[in-house]
Amino acid sequence: MSDGLDRVRETLAARAAAGLRRNLRPRAADADVLDLASNDYLGLARHPRLVEAAARAAREWGAGSTGSRLVTGTTALHAELEAELADFCRAPAALVFSSGYLANLGVLTALGGRDVAIVSDAANHASLIDGCRLSGSPVTVVPHRDVAAFDEALAAAAARDRIVVTDAVFSVDGDLAPLVELHAVARAHGALLVVDEAHALGVIGPEGRGAVEAAGLAGEPDVVRTVVLSKSLGAQGGAVVGAAEVVELLVSTARSFIFDTGLAPASAGAALAALRVLRAEPERVASVRANAVVLAALVRRLGIDTAEPDAAVVAAVLGDPLRAVRAAEACLDAGVRVGCFRPPSVPVDRSCVRLTARATLTEPDFGRAADALGAALHGS
Amino acid sequence: MSDGLDRVRETLAARAAAGLRRNLRPRAADADVLDLASNDYLGLARHPRLVEAAARAAREWGAGSTGSRLVTGTTALHAELEAELADFCRAPAALVFSSGYLANLGVLTALGGRDVAIVSDAANHASLIDGCRLSGSPVTVVPHRDVAAFDEALAAAAARDRIVVTDAVFSVDGDLAPLVELHAVARAHGALLVVDEAHALGVIGPEGRGAVEAAGLAGEPDVVRTVVLSKSLGAQGGAVVGAAEVVELLVSTARSFIFDTGLAPASAGAALAALRVLRAEPERVASVRANAVVLAALVRRLGIDTAEPDAAVVAAVLGDPLRAVRAAEACLDAGVRVGCFRPPSVPVDRSCVRLTARATLTEPDFGRAADALGAALHGS
Repeated sequence: MSDGLDRVRETLAARAAAGLRRNLRPRAADADVLDLASNDYLGLARHPRLVEAAARAAREWGAGSTGSRLVTGTTALHAELEAELADFCRAPAALVFSSGYLANLGVLTALGGRDVAIVSDAANHASLIDGCRLSGSPVTVVPHRDVAAFDEALAAAAARDRIVVTDAVFSVDGDLAPLVELHAVARAHGALLVVDEAHALGVIGPEGRGAVEAAGLAGEPDVVRTVVLSKSLGAQGGAVVGAAEVVELLVSTARSFIFDTGLAPASAGAALAALRVLRAEPERVASVRANAVVLAALVRRLGIDTAEPDAAVVAAVLGDPLRAVRAAEACLDAGVRVGCFRPPSVPVDRSCVRLTARATLTEPDFGRAADALGAALHGS
Repeated sequence: MSDGLDRVRETLAARAAAGLRRNLRPRAADADVLDLASNDYLGLARHPRLVEAAARAAREWGAGSTGSRLVTGTTALHAELEAELADFCRAPAALVFSSGYLANLGVLTALGGRDVAIVSDAANHASLIDGCRLSGSPVTVVPHRDVAAFDEALAAAAARDRIVVTDAVFSVDGDLAPLVELHAVARAHGALLVVDEAHALGVIGPEGRGAVEAAGLAGEPDVVRTVVLSKSLGAQGGAVVGAAEVVELLVSTARSFIFDTGLAPASAGAALAALRVLRAEPERVASVRANAVVLAALVRRLGIDTAEPDAAVVAAVLGDPLRAVRAAEACLDAGVRVGCFRPPSVPVDRSCVRLTARATLTEPDFGRAADALGAALHGS
């Protein structure tokens, strides 16, 4: 008799044959590896103020929030973080989730529904795609950054209400959404514009306040943002930022908010500390973007095409998944960690190594990156 | 012109009229309130060993894990936690997610699919329901704990493969799933049995190893468990526990694993410390269950029907949502925090206050609970 795992083994074998096998490789705390792979864009994850704030929050509130946000999982620290996040994003209100993934599920399921058409960019993050699927909305996926296609899909939608959803900075290629144009189109159709600022907060806009602020849309009631606490802010969690009514609706109806344990106090405390470091040291924002430009130049010098970076992400597209895996492994052997993206993270034939800049990179880091990339990409 | 929020305001007004408005009420760190609402079943969230482990992990690894698990978000600490979780649950492997919600989405989307029929208990947690929806599987919802209905639905399924999914301890009523019988039925149909141990780990079974272990099923390859780090273990996060092949499949294909930032080191460290406290002090498991029996007796003495508790959860069903809200508020005014569950958390007409036991409750706590409940329930 079967042990019930035949299907699992078949899937694993098929993926291995397609070069899509993935392994977890735990990193050591003290490894002498140059990080060009993380989302710690501002170099805050190990900042003493964040670390101390995490420890203090655990001491004051405990290691966990002990319940869902509506039962015991909302501490005064969560409320303080939400107020400060809203203020930083120049929005009326914010609501913290235990992850950005759950924030995206929450906002789309609460705002969407059978009579709400969603129009979604083809390159949107998996969590937005899953949010669209879970919402029950009729969903139209339109070509990447194609404003006219958004307009047409909104006009064609039969539903009573409409939502436009897009990443602000796309996670693999690092390009920017045309937010001003998308908002104009959304408003013309009475649609809400939902923008995921995961890779934009701390990187784009004045003092890193994000792409919505940079586009002059922070005060618009019909713009709803999601942000994360786990990238530029060096902690964990996500949040929805927008009108007070939107936050109130999420509190009452977003399943991924209501039925999830609240964010751990240590992460809430660290994110709050990160916002304060960012306010005190806004020069980190310019540094990460300048460093991304340097990384893109390194990649181009090796004959690999890459776009001028809009944010912190630089993708070197290699095409074949095995080539991308080998290049990333060669980089790691040379002491430089880069990201490796294969399907389903990227479309077929768009496998790449992804470099992410950090505000704290130094000249010697760039030299080391150039050497490792040169050996890895020419050898791959 | 509309500001785009008309639909949001209409929904809020309708919910308020139905008595379903929810508000966040931040709690203070030093509030003199007796907690009968949290999921901190073993009283570990504020245990000095967890708090110190959280602080130490933040110091050693940083405030965040800095990336997704396949990029930079897997530290040696995550690997250590996974090994120890698997060992505690007597399973070959474990995989940590940043929340239990995401673990449930991950396991059902990775194991499910268009040609995999899922049969799901009607009282399953929202995260399991959302996992079913996202999986693309044909889903049959069967009456609560009805083994014959599971059997019939499995027999009737036209798909190539099959999954049975159930909570181990149901989150609102606190009753146990018939795991031995469900496993027999699942195996007869070649189906996998997916069990959410969220409210069972640390509460049910020898040394709190969970309901699957208590049912003698821990070694079965066709049983896949999800557990949480945020309830008995006092931290944050979730995990899938099962065969090595299942974990390998999740690493390669579970979207809520691949596309989410790894759990914060502080939470991983705290959960690891909790497992060690639990091993050293297994008497906490007996205490929480004995305390639940005392709470149930208190409720019954007030003329409110409640079942003999199988785990730590005691539900006092009041029916009308406004009555439940008023009772929970009266308890809080009397210094006792209880949970209040209304639709969509419970079926219509099953609104309740929910008491959760904790291993560390004392005789004076029970006296205080009796006084507060007496005033609140008779006055409601």
